[in-house]
Amino acid sequence: MKINVSLEEAQELVLSMVNPVGETVVSLPAALGRVISRDLIAPFSEPSFDKSAFDGYAVRAGDTRSASSASPVVLQVIEEVSAGSVPVKKVVPGCAIRIMTGAPLPEGADAVVPFEDVEEALGSIVIRRPLAAGSGVIPTGNDVLEGEVIARRGRRVNALLIGVLASLGITRVPVYDQVRVAIINTGSELLDPSEKRQLGKIYVSNRYLLEARCREVGAEPVYLEGVPDEKGAIAGSLKKALEKADLVITTGGTSAGRYDVIKEALSIIGAQILFSRVAIKPGKSVIASHKDEKIILSLAGNPTAAMVTFDLVAVPAIKRMSGLEDPLLPVVTGILAGGFPSTSPRRRLLMARWKRQNGLGLIELAGKQGNVLKSSIDCNLLVDVPAGSPPLAAGQSVAAFVVGNLNDSLSEDE
Amino acid sequence: MKINVSLEEAQELVLSMVNPVGETVVSLPAALGRVISRDLIAPFSEPSFDKSAFDGYAVRAGDTRSASSASPVVLQVIEEVSAGSVPVKKVVPGCAIRIMTGAPLPEGADAVVPFEDVEEALGSIVIRRPLAAGSGVIPTGNDVLEGEVIARRGRRVNALLIGVLASLGITRVPVYDQVRVAIINTGSELLDPSEKRQLGKIYVSNRYLLEARCREVGAEPVYLEGVPDEKGAIAGSLKKALEKADLVITTGGTSAGRYDVIKEALSIIGAQILFSRVAIKPGKSVIASHKDEKIILSLAGNPTAAMVTFDLVAVPAIKRMSGLEDPLLPVVTGILAGGFPSTSPRRRLLMARWKRQNGLGLIELAGKQGNVLKSSIDCNLLVDVPAGSPPLAAGQSVAAFVVGNLNDSLSEDE
Repeated sequence: MKINVSLEEAQELVLSMVNPVGETVVSLPAALGRVISRDLIAPFSEPSFDKSAFDGYAVRAGDTRSASSASPVVLQVIEEVSAGSVPVKKVVPGCAIRIMTGAPLPEGADAVVPFEDVEEALGSIVIRRPLAAGSGVIPTGNDVLEGEVIARRGRRVNALLIGVLASLGITRVPVYDQVRVAIINTGSELLDPSEKRQLGKIYVSNRYLLEARCREVGAEPVYLEGVPDEKGAIAGSLKKALEKADLVITTGGTSAGRYDVIKEALSIIGAQILFSRVAIKPGKSVIASHKDEKIILSLAGNPTAAMVTFDLVAVPAIKRMSGLEDPLLPVVTGILAGGFPSTSPRRRLLMARWKRQNGLGLIELAGKQGNVLKSSIDCNLLVDVPAGSPPLAAGQSVAAFVVGNLNDSLSEDE
Repeated sequence: MKINVSLEEAQELVLSMVNPVGETVVSLPAALGRVISRDLIAPFSEPSFDKSAFDGYAVRAGDTRSASSASPVVLQVIEEVSAGSVPVKKVVPGCAIRIMTGAPLPEGADAVVPFEDVEEALGSIVIRRPLAAGSGVIPTGNDVLEGEVIARRGRRVNALLIGVLASLGITRVPVYDQVRVAIINTGSELLDPSEKRQLGKIYVSNRYLLEARCREVGAEPVYLEGVPDEKGAIAGSLKKALEKADLVITTGGTSAGRYDVIKEALSIIGAQILFSRVAIKPGKSVIASHKDEKIILSLAGNPTAAMVTFDLVAVPAIKRMSGLEDPLLPVVTGILAGGFPSTSPRRRLLMARWKRQNGLGLIELAGKQGNVLKSSIDCNLLVDVPAGSPPLAAGQSVAAFVVGNLNDSLSEDE
């Protein structure tokens, strides 16, 4: 058991113990947002035949070489092919076939002239400019080549990928299972928000916060009843959680006081502690342990601290267990829009928001830091302030972990 | 009816006809991702009492003024308050109360010294440094003040907001209804991806693409059977769609050929056309009409064109109908990572991907443009190239509409 590890060491210790949880096959619409578990290969080229890019006439480009306004070329229309039909005739010299968008190019033709560019009369068309071979034609394999890798294992499925898979007739998609995350809130001071207020008690925000955060990162929360600060009750809940979930999160009961019973509960169930405490503020009080090849992360009861350590330690684990290629949180650098007045004897994480300004990455700190949730509603970054840093000045360059959706920063005016 | 309108005019004409579709009340967990329909006000301050920031001892700061290592101050511990309990005694001069994280500060005390900083023996603690008044105390209202607006109407609910609402005992959330979007794919060449391949036919990717895109923007897709290129069949499907959905999308049948029957179908059901064609490439073939106070957007059959116009014209409408504050697509500016070889006689939209590099917003064009879906899988931007532009050079600054998730650009190395 290690004590007071660095954030990177904490992440590594946890990541070294987890693997993707399993895989399954889902229907195409159900694959949205899921992570692909096997490389997807194109079963055929797309388009699978040369086709017309628009409604027009399939011709031989050679026939139009001398066409001009002064000396137009006249071609005889010998057939019409609608989209979904197949041409019967060949385009021989002097002839054209009327063709609709997406219809297969007839044999002999190598270009399509759009309807708007020609006049048709008495079964013939008049062409007034030369066409290049291939113009107006979408060639076989233009989008996808047979055998090509369409999507690699470990990527998340978005709408565009679903469109591509549909075009290739792929209706069953191999994906990783969603990670089931059990959340246990400990603390005799906790009330459910549906209960009546009581002096000295608080509503359990961690349950709802972490359940929602799980959903935001593609995991499936499994809620277990909250338990009081009592080692036996916590141990019982942990046992249930290990049966029902792939990863167990507890909140509360991790700090130094005599009511801090998480360690005793972990000992009762025989969990091995990986580390206790991470050298960051907020969020130093974290205990990571494992039992039955599953990780138990015990976070502080304070919602801000719980959220920060959930994002920094639990989310990478969830990402790896979800099968995602790169489990670590992305880091962006940017210019601070405003300063931070305090020194940071310990490594500190500041809630912040990415802000766009003329293509530059500005980073705006939340108005309040520490023990506040409301100030963080619009935050999508955690600025990483190294231990020993002096106060931060506006205009200074900083690095930040991306923990939320950057698109949320786009709604305001530049 | 207007012909060949600008993109901005198209958006305005459609937006001027739509309103939020309705509102409802959902449970707190179900509010994730939904749009709030009424300002949410804090019913009480949070915290609602002064509380201890950690496990320690509540003291009077004045008692510790002279404390030093050489001359420590000794205080008598008169009570213990666990989280969730309420102190019975007052802290009088010379005394301290043992207190757990989150427990209410006892009367008379104005500071908390952490367990780690003192020794307790024989019912007394020894303090070796002075405390400032307020240190170790989280004051009432530190996070939220009673009566404060927690979230304004028109914002989307994220996990952090759910945490704040839970802490305030708000368990029922007023949200706008999700927009129901009917999707009708027309075209005799279309096969469902579950069907056997046939020469000259293609799998209907638009259905799956647009359904998934609807889900990505928080709308609820309503699928209607595909219909052949036949005005009566299309008209029948449109009627059903207007009954079931708030917004109707059709794909296919909008270009200039003789099989292009969307306009005839719109005329059969008595829809009024707002505009036909938008001056952009790809995606010029769009018809917007309205009937029964609902918008019908008829997009091209080509998936790339359908997707571009869905994002640029349908998404703003969906956003307004969803109740979001700002329906227009955000625009970012950035430096092109590579050039584009063609001139743009018409306004052109190029599929691209945001790329981070040293805090700069780099924009990387997709390898292929036009009639390709696969190249666009990783795209989250549409670069806006004004009509009359020469080829684009690497290093040039361009503006782009954000159509996808910017976080998707963060996984690669800088």
